[in-house]
Amino acid sequence: MRRRLGEARVGRLATVTPAGAPHVVPCCFALDGDRIVSAVDAKPKSTLALARLANLAAHPRAALLVDQWSEDWDELWWVRADGAGRVVESGPEREAALDLLAAKYEQYARRRPPGAVVVVEVDRWRGWP
Amino acid sequence: MRRRLGEARVGRLATVTPAGAPHVVPCCFALDGDRIVSAVDAKPKSTLALARLANLAAHPRAALLVDQWSEDWDELWWVRADGAGRVVESGPEREAALDLLAAKYEQYARRRPPGAVVVVEVDRWRGWP
Repeated sequence: MRRRLGEARVGRLATVTPAGAPHVVPCCFALDGDRIVSAVDAKPKSTLALARLANLAAHPRAALLVDQWSEDWDELWWVRADGAGRVVESGPEREAALDLLAAKYEQYARRRPPGAVVVVEVDRWRGWP
Repeated sequence: MRRRLGEARVGRLATVTPAGAPHVVPCCFALDGDRIVSAVDAKPKSTLALARLANLAAHPRAALLVDQWSEDWDELWWVRADGAGRVVESGPEREAALDLLAAKYEQYARRRPPGAVVVVEVDRWRGWP
């Protein structure tokens, strides 16, 4: 499950809004052991991008899903990592996370994300089949 | 946004667990106006598949995300439909939902899903860019 999740180029990050509703966005991420890091980069330019940060401040649980779609349903799989999420605005932990992201995505290596980083400490792995 | 979501072959359905944590799974779905239907089919064979049903019983809000990934980040987009979700176990509403799903997926036309149906009445559309 770690290999499949770690190699995926995009995941879907689910959080819970302050009002208790589900929220989900696609995101780039990097996996380091049981830690997932993701940046709030320049891609989503509106304030919508900040919802995940407000959500984690209110409800620290997060879930990252990676899946493979195929019209041949024997080829389907998914992996979900559940954990405690938090926002890192600055400092060495943010820099280390950005190093991981830049090593995985040349887009980030060319242009380092300017904003906060989300860190998820995974405490449960689920997968199917 | 409706066109992009409706044409997508797979979405990611986010709900909230009874304990208040985020939950997200990939799913097939069909869109009819502002209504999304999805079946709990034979694909996920374990009891994990039932989590979304228990979640909706506890917290009726749901969010379905569709996105396009590309290494060219100018090609990225996503659409999210937020709404009220509920489980339909039997009856004409379930049959109508299965008809919609069978019209979209030949896999469902060949083998009609045996279980419950999830219906989401969308009340908010969000998209990027």
